[in-house]
Amino acid sequence: NGWIQFRHHGFSRDVSSWTSMAGNTHSIRNRNAFDIERGRLVFSGYAKDPRLTYFLQLDGDTDGGHAVDFFDYWWAWDFSDDFQIQFGKRKVTASRQWLLGARSTRLTERPMACDFFRPDRTLGIFANGKFGETGRYELMVGNGYSTSNLPDSATDNNLTFAATSYFDIGGKYGSQIVDFQPSDDPVARLGHSMVYSPITEGTNGLPLGEADFTRLTDGTQLTANGALAPGVTVSAYKIYLYSVDFAAKYRGWSFNSEVYLRWIEQLEANGALPTYNLYQHGYFVEGGHFVIPRTLEWNVRYSQINGRFGNSGEVAVGLNWFPRKSTDMKLSIDFTNVVSSALQNTSSDILVGDDGRLIRAQIQTEF
Amino acid sequence: NGWIQFRHHGFSRDVSSWTSMAGNTHSIRNRNAFDIERGRLVFSGYAKDPRLTYFLQLDGDTDGGHAVDFFDYWWAWDFSDDFQIQFGKRKVTASRQWLLGARSTRLTERPMACDFFRPDRTLGIFANGKFGETGRYELMVGNGYSTSNLPDSATDNNLTFAATSYFDIGGKYGSQIVDFQPSDDPVARLGHSMVYSPITEGTNGLPLGEADFTRLTDGTQLTANGALAPGVTVSAYKIYLYSVDFAAKYRGWSFNSEVYLRWIEQLEANGALPTYNLYQHGYFVEGGHFVIPRTLEWNVRYSQINGRFGNSGEVAVGLNWFPRKSTDMKLSIDFTNVVSSALQNTSSDILVGDDGRLIRAQIQTEF
Amino acid sequence: NGWIQFRHHGFSRDVSSWTSMAGNTHSIRNRNAFDIERGRLVFSGYAKDPRLTYFLQLDGDTDGGHAVDFFDYWWAWDFSDDFQIQFGKRKVTASRQWLLGARSTRLTERPMACDFFRPDRTLGIFANGKFGETGRYELMVGNGYSTSNLPDSATDNNLTFAATSYFDIGGKYGSQIVDFQPSDDPVARLGHSMVYSPITEGTNGLPLGEADFTRLTDGTQLTANGALAPGVTVSAYKIYLYSVDFAAKYRGWSFNSEVYLRWIEQLEANGALPTYNLYQHGYFVEGGHFVIPRTLEWNVRYSQINGRFGNSGEVAVGLNWFPRKSTDMKLSIDFTNVVSSALQNTSSDILVGDDGRLIRAQIQTEF
Repeated sequence: NGWIQFRHHGFSRDVSSWTSMAGNTHSIRNRNAFDIERGRLVFSGYAKDPRLTYFLQLDGDTDGGHAVDFFDYWWAWDFSDDFQIQFGKRKVTASRQWLLGARSTRLTERPMACDFFRPDRTLGIFANGKFGETGRYELMVGNGYSTSNLPDSATDNNLTFAATSYFDIGGKYGSQIVDFQPSDDPVARLGHSMVYSPITEGTNGLPLGEADFTRLTDGTQLTANGALAPGVTVSAYKIYLYSVDFAAKYRGWSFNSEVYLRWIEQLEANGALPTYNLYQHGYFVEGGHFVIPRTLEWNVRYSQINGRFGNSGEVAVGLNWFPRKSTDMKLSIDFTNVVSSALQNTSSDILVGDDGRLIRAQIQTEF
Repeated sequence: NGWIQFRHHGFSRDVSSWTSMAGNTHSIRNRNAFDIERGRLVFSGYAKDPRLTYFLQLDGDTDGGHAVDFFDYWWAWDFSDDFQIQFGKRKVTASRQWLLGARSTRLTERPMACDFFRPDRTLGIFANGKFGETGRYELMVGNGYSTSNLPDSATDNNLTFAATSYFDIGGKYGSQIVDFQPSDDPVARLGHSMVYSPITEGTNGLPLGEADFTRLTDGTQLTANGALAPGVTVSAYKIYLYSVDFAAKYRGWSFNSEVYLRWIEQLEANGALPTYNLYQHGYFVEGGHFVIPRTLEWNVRYSQINGRFGNSGEVAVGLNWFPRKSTDMKLSIDFTNVVSSALQNTSSDILVGDDGRLIRAQIQTEF
Repeated sequence: NGWIQFRHHGFSRDVSSWTSMAGNTHSIRNRNAFDIERGRLVFSGYAKDPRLTYFLQLDGDTDGGHAVDFFDYWWAWDFSDDFQIQFGKRKVTASRQWLLGARSTRLTERPMACDFFRPDRTLGIFANGKFGETGRYELMVGNGYSTSNLPDSATDNNLTFAATSYFDIGGKYGSQIVDFQPSDDPVARLGHSMVYSPITEGTNGLPLGEADFTRLTDGTQLTANGALAPGVTVSAYKIYLYSVDFAAKYRGWSFNSEVYLRWIEQLEANGALPTYNLYQHGYFVEGGHFVIPRTLEWNVRYSQINGRFGNSGEVAVGLNWFPRKSTDMKLSIDFTNVVSSALQNTSSDILVGDDGRLIRAQIQTEF
């Protein structure tokens, strides 16, 4: 089976260009476009033995070159009902909001702070299991923090480690963060996540492709020449991410939030740097209410990214309509005020330097 | 299910090079190659509600890098038997010959004039419905004229509009342009199409990737530096396309034709231009006859592209053999004399500047 | 259905860089990474007529950009039980070890000598049939020796020809080279293969992309500027490959080997060359034994590449564990000592210039 997000987005800029710490200026364009933001085909089942399951997801979004990827591809072995090992390509197991499926976000996309701090997919070995009555944990060792579609030649020889866990209070929270099926009693979920990812330079003293994703809080790529000091390029560093998440829902109302703390340590470069470590932090808070149960919901969001070189933020409001009183079809519209985006993310239609008003309308269906 | 076109083509050149209006010279090579010209996998059906249907087509032709694309991907909602809205990626709704499936062309490929003037696929919203007894129309608003696999960063913030309609005379024409199932009475189809597509420059005053497809009638890319005046680059323009199509069939004989008129208006550039608008036109006529009904057919074609900077043409003859007396398997061979091609199209094995003889042999099968 | 190879590999270098004959120096890095080395989805069956069969294999390995390819795609027509014609994209029919499915290699990968000398996939027409009681042959005419994912613009207008045949002694050898299902009587297979592939230059006198794959036995690309003489670039040549293969198995023991002879003749270049033909040769020998029938097997391998400009070699030992007493799930680990690799192959995790120790651990499953 599969699913799709068909979207129109419009962006009205307040500024016409953005200049990075490295001195490069990019123009900010008004935008007005249709996209298939996510088009997924899923093959899954078990193979020969019911304890051996597989999951293959192809993706064909239209932001990039429209080519099809093996997006997720993993095999799992169930040692017991409570413990499973997975091999393959999956999300790095950190950040509750990142691990939430893109079909189930409150607005059309994840919050800006999540997309800025979160890791990406990677290849590795994953373990997950249960603890207590409602607790779950996931552990991972994999290639890198953000090496999703990179060839081996662009990744270093260090591995990345991640762990996450949560437990529910007042009953099972379920897979929807919103209160789609109205809860008679309040339920809540509390969790936290961490990642450790050392990133080394190439043999030529320059950063590998893997190191490119990290940005300063003004949006400058950390490995851009001149990002921290004129003429100097950062080539290696270590990332520590820690996040705490909380969600609650009751009688059609729901609320969720995550706080991100990221330390970038032991910076190495081909020259003197003004600092050898960076501390970045951010958070989002979201909430909403089903005006018509299982049908119509309004939502709000506030999100912030803070650090030494700049701050970004967004405020958003949106509506979701489930015409079939089921989560398999969802029409959404949201309006976001973006301030000095440090995030570059074509999926969420927020690009680095964006300052302005963004409107997204989306049809999401499953088959 | 799926289908495939496996093809051998040979090209024998009459000229060894081609020089564009911008002064660039490309060599013309003799060619001799096997290709999977189109390899398609189709997933379609309805989702949860019979009024909600989806269509996903993957393509893996071997002309480019052999990668797989989400070629067409749309969802449709049937408001009634007579009216449907589609969301996603589809062909821009203009030119009868372009909207005809590539499996159903008379020779192995579409005529040169069609491929030169036609739009491409785009993302957008499409509506189609019926009028009168045999009439159908399609309307579209989408990202662009030729933005098929382009990322948003290469497309502008203008939308493109297209419309097409036709009606049949003497009975239902059916999906085959050739008279595969011999008609006892003459039937005909008359239609027309139009596209309006404004294309703006990037913020740096240079053309965006989206603007690259348009060519002068000698084959020069309109946005090439020096195409219209030395040192000057066209960065923005508006396209108006209008076409009229006619087809008829009777007792194994069939004929079809389409005339294309294209106005390229309000040219903008980084210097003075000798002209601020261009008018291009072309047409094709095709016909054929089943010597053995449902089995063996001969065909001929003549096609022309005309305009201020040059003229192109082709004359072709071909044979189709349907060994199973069914359209699900077709063996074709055709011979084309190409004169000064203004078209660059790896699918039809006709490249810009080609002047010579082209032979194509093809096996087409469905499963 | 489909299958996957999930692998971890580590490489510990003995040298820190490699310098080609052309004078370019590349660094050799230690490596430590997880990969989905091969992730395949297969669609096959017959279409309308039981004599018309198709085979479509999508591949999504993670060595390159993680994009999905139409890896193999062919249609076949069975003229009789003993003769079949195939159209499409397949392996060039030469080298027993290359034609062996990647699922069935003795260690996690093919021997270095095979990957150095073997052709790749191509588009073309293939015939296969039987002779005698156990003999089989395959013939091919196709686009090129190594044109797997190349566009037509990078390939020349010469065709490539290949042929292979084998017969079994003492009974049917079967599809597994190892003695998975223990043989009570000794069986053996003897075969040979040949390829003829002329490769011409582009119209500009420079080599086409198609010519790039051939390497000198030190690892230098034959078409690199300066490979054979300072400042001179080889632009055209003809390849003749001949190989002989032998395999035998008995009571859980098995042995197989292939010898490769390759002549590169009629070298053309844009300057004087010290030689106008090259002769390269190599071989591998492999063997193993099931300690526990259908479950646990140890294996060894020795492989060599020899020629005028250098020699490469590998010695490897490995274990295979079939936990389900079936070939549909295989866990493998092998250790290879690599000496002066002339091979560049991201699939086997052996890169040009590698000198050191390689360890690969792999899980292979089918569904």
